[in-house]
Amino acid sequence: MSIERIESGPLMSQAVIHRGGGSVHLAGLIAADLNADTKGQTEQILARIDALLAAAGTDKTRLLRANIWLVDIGEWAMMNEAWSPWVAPGCTPARATVEARLAAPKARVEIMVDAALP
Amino acid sequence: MSIERIESGPLMSQAVIHRGGGSVHLAGLIAADLNADTKGQTEQILARIDALLAAAGTDKTRLLRANIWLVDIGEWAMMNEAWSPWVAPGCTPARATVEARLAAPKARVEIMVDAALP
Amino acid sequence: MSIERIESGPLMSQAVIHRGGGSVHLAGLIAADLNADTKGQTEQILARIDALLAAAGTDKTRLLRANIWLVDIGEWAMMNEAWSPWVAPGCTPARATVEARLAAPKARVEIMVDAALP
Repeated sequence: MSIERIESGPLMSQAVIHRGGGSVHLAGLIAADLNADTKGQTEQILARIDALLAAAGTDKTRLLRANIWLVDIGEWAMMNEAWSPWVAPGCTPARATVEARLAAPKARVEIMVDAALP
Repeated sequence: MSIERIESGPLMSQAVIHRGGGSVHLAGLIAADLNADTKGQTEQILARIDALLAAAGTDKTRLLRANIWLVDIGEWAMMNEAWSPWVAPGCTPARATVEARLAAPKARVEIMVDAALP
Repeated sequence: MSIERIESGPLMSQAVIHRGGGSVHLAGLIAADLNADTKGQTEQILARIDALLAAAGTDKTRLLRANIWLVDIGEWAMMNEAWSPWVAPGCTPARATVEARLAAPKARVEIMVDAALP
Protein backbone atom coordinates (compact mmCIF):
# COMPACT_ATOMS: atom_id res chain seq x y z
CA MET A 1 0.00 0.00 0.00
CA SER A 2 1.45 3.31 -1.05
CA ILE A 3 2.45 6.21 1.23
CA GLU A 4 2.95 9.73 -0.11
CA ARG A 5 4.56 12.53 1.87
CA ILE A 6 4.01 16.25 1.37
CA GLU A 7 6.78 18.73 2.25
CA SER A 8 8.84 15.96 3.74
CA GLY A 9 11.71 17.39 5.83
CA PRO A 10 14.50 15.79 7.83
CA LEU A 11 12.49 15.74 11.10
CA MET A 12 8.91 15.40 9.91
CA SER A 13 6.59 15.58 6.94
CA GLN A 14 3.88 18.24 6.81
CA ALA A 15 1.38 15.62 5.62
CA VAL A 16 1.45 11.86 5.08
CA ILE A 17 -1.09 10.25 2.76
CA HIS A 18 -1.95 6.65 3.60
CA ARG A 19 -3.95 5.33 0.65
CA GLY A 20 -4.41 1.92 2.28
CA GLY A 21 -6.19 3.52 5.22
CA GLY A 22 -8.00 6.12 3.15
CA SER A 23 -6.58 8.92 5.27
CA VAL A 24 -4.09 11.77 5.46
CA HIS A 25 -2.22 12.74 8.61
CA LEU A 26 -0.99 16.31 9.09
CA ALA A 27 1.87 17.43 11.31
CA GLY A 28 1.28 19.53 14.41
CA LEU A 29 1.12 22.98 12.82
CA ILE A 30 1.93 26.39 14.27
CA ALA A 31 1.45 29.83 12.72
CA ALA A 32 4.02 31.32 10.33
CA ASP A 33 3.64 34.78 11.89
CA LEU A 34 3.99 34.26 15.62
CA ASN A 35 3.39 37.95 16.35
CA ALA A 36 -0.33 37.32 15.82
CA ASP A 37 -2.56 36.73 18.84
CA THR A 38 -4.11 33.34 19.56
CA LYS A 39 -7.08 33.96 17.25
CA GLY A 40 -4.79 35.18 14.47
CA GLN A 41 -2.38 32.27 14.92
CA THR A 42 -5.30 29.85 14.75
CA GLU A 43 -6.54 31.48 11.52
CA GLN A 44 -3.10 31.04 9.98
CA ILE A 45 -2.95 27.38 11.02
CA LEU A 46 -6.42 26.65 9.64
CA ALA A 47 -5.52 28.26 6.28
CA ARG A 48 -2.42 26.05 6.23
CA ILE A 49 -4.56 22.99 7.00
CA ASP A 50 -6.79 23.91 4.04
CA ALA A 51 -3.74 24.10 1.78
CA LEU A 52 -2.28 20.79 2.95
CA LEU A 53 -5.62 18.99 2.70
CA ALA A 54 -6.00 20.37 -0.85
CA ALA A 55 -2.52 19.12 -1.71
CA ALA A 56 -3.61 15.71 -0.44
CA GLY A 57 -6.77 15.82 -2.60
CA THR A 58 -9.26 16.27 0.22
CA ASP A 59 -10.78 19.09 2.28
CA LYS A 60 -12.11 20.11 5.71
CA THR A 61 -15.50 18.49 5.13
CA ARG A 62 -13.67 15.18 5.58
CA LEU A 63 -11.88 15.93 8.87
CA LEU A 64 -11.75 12.95 11.21
CA ARG A 65 -9.94 14.10 14.34
CA ALA A 66 -8.08 17.10 15.70
CA ASN A 67 -5.68 17.61 18.60
CA ILE A 68 -5.29 21.20 19.74
CA TRP A 69 -2.67 22.39 22.21
CA LEU A 70 -2.91 25.83 23.80
CA VAL A 71 -0.11 27.44 25.81
CA ASP A 72 -2.87 28.92 28.00
CA ILE A 73 -6.06 26.88 28.17
CA GLY A 74 -7.77 30.11 29.20
CA GLU A 75 -7.51 31.08 25.52
CA TRP A 76 -9.87 28.24 24.50
CA ALA A 77 -12.63 30.73 23.54
CA MET A 78 -10.19 32.87 21.53
CA MET A 79 -9.02 29.85 19.56
CA ASN A 80 -12.64 28.92 18.89
CA GLU A 81 -13.32 32.41 17.47
CA ALA A 82 -11.18 31.27 14.55
CA TRP A 83 -12.20 27.59 14.62
CA SER A 84 -16.00 28.10 14.65
CA PRO A 85 -16.35 30.06 11.40
CA TRP A 86 -13.80 27.79 9.70
CA VAL A 87 -15.24 24.31 10.25
CA ALA A 88 -17.77 23.08 7.69
CA PRO A 89 -21.26 22.86 9.27
CA GLY A 90 -22.17 19.24 9.95
CA CYS A 91 -18.61 18.12 9.29
CA THR A 92 -16.82 18.83 12.57
CA PRO A 93 -14.12 16.36 13.63
CA ALA A 94 -13.64 14.52 16.90
CA ARG A 95 -11.51 17.00 18.85
CA ALA A 96 -9.50 17.31 22.06
CA THR A 97 -7.97 20.55 23.35
CA VAL A 98 -5.51 20.62 26.23
CA GLU A 99 -2.84 22.95 27.59
CA ALA A 100 0.84 22.43 26.79
CA ARG A 101 4.03 24.41 26.36
CA LEU A 102 5.14 24.36 22.71
CA ALA A 103 8.56 24.19 21.06
CA ALA A 104 8.44 27.66 19.48
CA PRO A 105 8.50 30.24 22.30
CA LYS A 106 5.94 32.64 20.79
CA ALA A 107 3.55 29.98 19.47
CA ARG A 108 0.23 30.13 21.37
CA VAL A 109 -1.53 27.24 19.63
CA GLU A 110 -0.65 24.07 17.71
CA ILE A 111 -3.12 21.90 15.77
CA MET A 112 -2.73 18.37 14.37
CA VAL A 113 -5.50 16.83 12.25
CA ASP A 114 -6.32 13.63 10.37
CA ALA A 115 -8.74 13.62 7.43
CA ALA A 116 -10.28 11.02 5.15
CA LEU A 117 -9.40 10.88 1.48
CA PRO A 118 -12.34 11.22 -0.98
CA MET B 1 -15.79 6.68 1.07
CA SER B 2 -18.51 7.65 3.49
CA ILE B 3 -18.09 9.51 6.79
CA GLU B 4 -20.79 9.50 9.48
CA ARG B 5 -20.80 11.80 12.49
CA ILE B 6 -22.47 11.14 15.84
CA GLU B 7 -23.70 14.07 17.97
CA SER B 8 -22.11 16.52 15.58
CA GLY B 9 -21.95 19.99 17.15
CA PRO B 10 -20.66 23.35 15.92
CA LEU B 11 -17.14 22.81 17.36
CA MET B 12 -16.70 19.06 17.24
CA SER B 13 -18.44 15.74 16.76
CA GLN B 14 -18.59 13.25 19.60
CA ALA B 15 -17.67 10.44 17.20
CA VAL B 16 -16.67 10.23 13.54
CA ILE B 17 -17.08 6.96 11.66
CA HIS B 18 -14.64 6.45 8.79
CA ARG B 19 -15.90 3.43 6.86
CA GLY B 20 -13.03 3.60 4.38
CA GLY B 21 -10.51 3.19 7.18
CA GLY B 22 -12.61 0.74 9.16
CA SER B 23 -12.43 2.94 12.25
CA VAL B 24 -14.28 5.32 14.51
CA HIS B 25 -12.68 8.32 16.22
CA LEU B 26 -14.13 9.68 19.46
CA ALA B 27 -13.74 13.21 20.79
CA GLY B 28 -11.73 13.94 23.90
CA LEU B 29 -14.36 13.19 26.56
CA ILE B 30 -14.75 14.56 30.06
CA ALA B 31 -17.22 13.55 32.78
CA ALA B 32 -20.76 14.96 32.87
CA ASP B 33 -20.66 15.29 36.67
CA LEU B 34 -17.43 17.11 37.45
CA ASN B 35 -18.05 16.90 41.20
CA ALA B 36 -16.89 13.27 41.06
CA ASP B 37 -13.29 12.45 41.94
CA THR B 38 -10.78 11.26 39.34
CA LYS B 39 -11.89 7.63 39.59
CA GLY B 40 -15.55 8.63 39.36
CA GLN B 41 -14.93 10.97 36.44
CA THR B 42 -13.05 8.20 34.64
CA GLU B 43 -15.95 5.78 35.21
CA GLN B 44 -18.34 8.30 33.68
CA ILE B 45 -16.10 8.82 30.66
CA LEU B 46 -15.72 5.07 30.08
CA ALA B 47 -19.50 4.58 30.23
CA ARG B 48 -19.81 7.37 27.67
CA ILE B 49 -17.20 5.66 25.47
CA ASP B 50 -19.23 2.43 25.65
CA ALA B 51 -22.34 4.33 24.52
CA LEU B 52 -20.60 6.10 21.63
CA LEU B 53 -18.89 2.90 20.46
CA ALA B 54 -22.28 1.15 20.54
CA ALA B 55 -23.80 3.98 18.49
CA ALA B 56 -20.98 3.43 15.98
CA GLY B 57 -21.71 -0.30 15.86
CA THR B 58 -18.59 -1.46 17.68
CA ASP B 59 -17.38 -1.96 21.27
CA LYS B 60 -14.41 -1.80 23.64
CA THR B 61 -13.01 -5.16 22.51
CA ARG B 62 -12.00 -3.34 19.32
CA LEU B 63 -10.18 -0.38 20.87
CA LEU B 64 -7.09 0.64 18.91
CA ARG B 65 -5.56 3.58 20.77
CA ALA B 66 -6.26 5.86 23.70
CA ASN B 67 -4.89 9.23 24.79
CA ILE B 68 -5.47 10.10 28.43
CA TRP B 69 -4.80 13.50 29.97
CA LEU B 70 -4.71 13.97 33.73
CA VAL B 71 -4.66 17.36 35.44
CA ASP B 72 -2.38 15.75 38.04
CA ILE B 73 -0.28 12.86 36.75
CA GLY B 74 -0.05 11.76 40.40
CA GLU B 75 -3.63 10.53 39.94
CA TRP B 76 -2.53 7.93 37.36
CA ALA B 77 -3.28 5.05 39.77
CA MET B 78 -6.70 6.50 40.64
CA MET B 79 -7.62 6.73 36.97
CA ASN B 80 -6.50 3.13 36.49
CA GLU B 81 -8.80 1.98 39.31
CA ALA B 82 -11.62 2.75 36.87
CA TRP B 83 -9.75 1.80 33.69
CA SER B 84 -8.52 -1.65 34.81
CA PRO B 85 -11.91 -3.28 35.51
CA TRP B 86 -13.39 -1.64 32.40
CA VAL B 87 -11.06 -2.79 29.62
CA ALA B 88 -11.81 -6.15 28.03
CA PRO B 89 -9.11 -8.71 28.96
CA GLY B 90 -6.78 -9.32 26.03
CA CYS B 91 -8.22 -6.34 24.15
CA THR B 92 -6.37 -3.37 25.67
CA PRO B 93 -5.51 -0.51 23.32
CA ALA B 94 -2.21 1.21 22.69
CA ARG B 95 -2.31 3.99 25.30
CA ALA B 96 -0.46 7.13 26.37
CA THR B 97 -1.18 9.08 29.56
CA VAL B 98 0.33 12.51 30.22
CA GLU B 99 -0.42 15.52 32.40
CA ALA B 100 -2.23 18.56 31.02
CA ARG B 101 -4.54 21.33 32.15
CA LEU B 102 -8.00 20.87 30.64
CA ALA B 103 -10.57 23.33 29.31
CA ALA B 104 -13.22 22.63 31.98
CA PRO B 105 -11.87 23.88 35.33
CA LYS B 106 -13.15 20.96 37.44
CA ALA B 107 -12.35 18.20 34.94
CA ARG B 108 -9.59 15.94 36.29
CA VAL B 109 -9.29 13.57 33.32
CA GLU B 110 -9.99 13.57 29.57
CA ILE B 111 -9.89 10.50 27.31
CA MET B 112 -9.84 10.25 23.50
CA VAL B 113 -10.02 6.83 21.79
CA ASP B 114 -10.06 5.28 18.34
CA ALA B 115 -11.64 1.89 17.70
CA ALA B 116 -11.98 -0.47 14.76
CA LEU B 117 -15.36 -1.15 13.20
CA PRO B 118 -16.50 -4.82 13.12
CA MET C 1 -11.74 -7.26 10.28
CA SER C 2 -9.06 -8.73 12.46
CA ILE C 3 -7.16 -6.98 15.28
CA GLU C 4 -3.89 -8.36 16.66
CA ARG C 5 -2.26 -7.14 19.85
CA ILE C 6 1.45 -7.33 20.70
CA GLU C 7 2.56 -7.56 24.36
CA SER C 8 -0.99 -7.02 25.50
CA GLY C 9 -1.10 -6.21 29.22
CA PRO C 10 -3.91 -5.48 31.66
CA LEU C 11 -3.76 -1.70 31.09
CA MET C 12 -2.57 -1.39 27.51
CA SER C 13 -1.05 -3.21 24.58
CA GLN C 14 2.39 -2.25 23.31
CA ALA C 15 1.12 -2.40 19.71
CA VAL C 16 -2.27 -2.96 18.07
CA ILE C 17 -2.42 -4.14 14.47
CA HIS C 18 -5.54 -3.07 12.58
CA ARG C 19 -5.52 -5.04 9.32
CA GLY C 20 -8.76 -3.40 8.14
CA GLY C 21 -7.15 0.02 8.30
CA GLY C 22 -3.75 -1.15 7.09
CA SER C 23 -2.06 0.29 10.18
CA VAL C 24 -0.40 -0.46 13.49
CA HIS C 25 -0.71 1.73 16.58
CA LEU C 26 2.03 1.74 19.23
CA ALA C 27 1.63 2.67 22.88
CA GLY C 28 3.24 5.77 24.30
CA LEU C 29 6.73 4.43 25.00
CA ILE C 30 9.31 5.50 27.57
CA ALA C 31 12.90 4.30 28.02
CA ALA C 32 13.72 1.12 29.94
CA ASP C 33 16.77 2.75 31.56
CA LEU C 34 15.53 6.04 32.96
CA ASN C 35 19.00 6.99 34.20
CA ALA C 36 19.88 7.95 30.61
CA ASP C 37 19.64 11.59 29.56
CA THR C 38 16.99 12.83 27.12
CA LYS C 39 19.02 11.86 24.06
CA GLY C 40 19.76 8.43 25.50
CA GLN C 41 16.16 7.86 26.54
CA THR C 42 15.03 8.81 23.02
CA GLU C 43 17.51 6.35 21.49
CA GLN C 44 16.13 3.57 23.68
CA ILE C 45 12.55 4.42 22.71
CA LEU C 46 13.39 4.48 19.00
CA ALA C 47 15.08 1.07 19.23
CA ARG C 48 11.93 -0.21 20.95
CA ILE C 49 9.79 1.29 18.15
CA ASP C 50 11.95 -0.55 15.60
CA ALA C 51 11.38 -3.82 17.45
CA LEU C 52 7.62 -3.35 17.78
CA LEU C 53 7.25 -2.31 14.14
CA ALA C 54 9.24 -5.40 13.12
CA ALA C 55 6.97 -7.58 15.27
CA ALA C 56 4.04 -6.02 13.41
CA GLY C 57 5.65 -6.79 10.04
CA THR C 58 6.50 -3.21 9.09
CA ASP C 59 9.30 -0.67 9.69
CA LYS C 60 10.14 2.99 10.16
CA THR C 61 9.98 3.78 6.44
CA ARG C 62 6.20 3.44 6.80
CA LEU C 63 5.70 5.77 9.79
CA LEU C 64 2.51 7.83 9.51
CA ARG C 65 2.38 10.01 12.62
CA ALA C 66 4.21 10.59 15.87
CA ASN C 67 3.33 12.33 19.12
CA ILE C 68 6.28 13.27 21.31
CA TRP C 69 6.00 14.55 24.87
CA LEU C 70 8.97 16.14 26.62
CA VAL C 71 9.07 16.93 30.33
CA ASP C 72 11.07 20.05 29.38
CA ILE C 73 10.33 21.41 25.89
CA GLY C 74 13.75 23.09 26.13
CA GLU C 75 15.16 19.60 25.44
CA TRP C 76 13.60 19.53 21.95
CA ALA C 77 17.03 19.77 20.28
CA MET C 78 18.45 17.01 22.51
CA MET C 79 15.59 14.70 21.58
CA ASN C 80 16.18 15.47 17.89
CA GLU C 81 19.86 14.47 18.23
CA ALA C 82 18.53 10.93 18.56
CA TRP C 83 15.52 11.35 16.24
CA SER C 84 17.37 12.87 13.24
CA PRO C 85 19.83 10.03 12.57
CA TRP C 86 17.10 7.44 13.23
CA VAL C 87 14.36 8.46 10.80
CA ALA C 88 14.60 7.09 7.27
CA PRO C 89 15.40 9.89 4.79
CA GLY C 90 12.32 10.83 2.79
CA CYS C 91 10.08 8.82 5.13
CA THR C 92 9.53 11.16 8.07
CA PRO C 93 6.11 11.04 9.75
CA ALA C 94 3.70 13.83 10.55
CA ARG C 95 4.86 14.82 14.05
CA ALA C 96 3.87 16.99 17.00
CA THR C 97 6.05 17.64 20.04
CA VAL C 98 4.73 19.33 23.18
CA GLU C 99 5.67 19.57 26.84
CA ALA C 100 3.97 17.39 29.45
CA ARG C 101 4.69 15.79 32.79
CA LEU C 102 4.87 11.99 32.43
CA ALA C 103 3.73 9.14 34.67
CA ALA C 104 7.22 7.78 35.41
CA PRO C 105 9.08 10.39 37.50
CA LYS C 106 12.46 10.02 35.77
CA ALA C 107 11.13 9.71 32.22
CA ARG C 108 12.15 12.76 30.14
CA VAL C 109 10.44 11.79 26.87
CA GLU C 110 7.54 9.64 25.67
CA ILE C 111 6.79 8.79 22.02
CA MET C 112 3.65 7.30 20.44
CA VAL C 113 3.61 6.40 16.74
CA ASP C 114 1.30 4.96 14.09
CA ALA C 115 2.67 3.19 11.00
CA ALA C 116 1.24 1.67 7.85
CA LEU C 117 1.41 -2.06 7.23
CA PRO C 118 3.19 -3.17 4.02
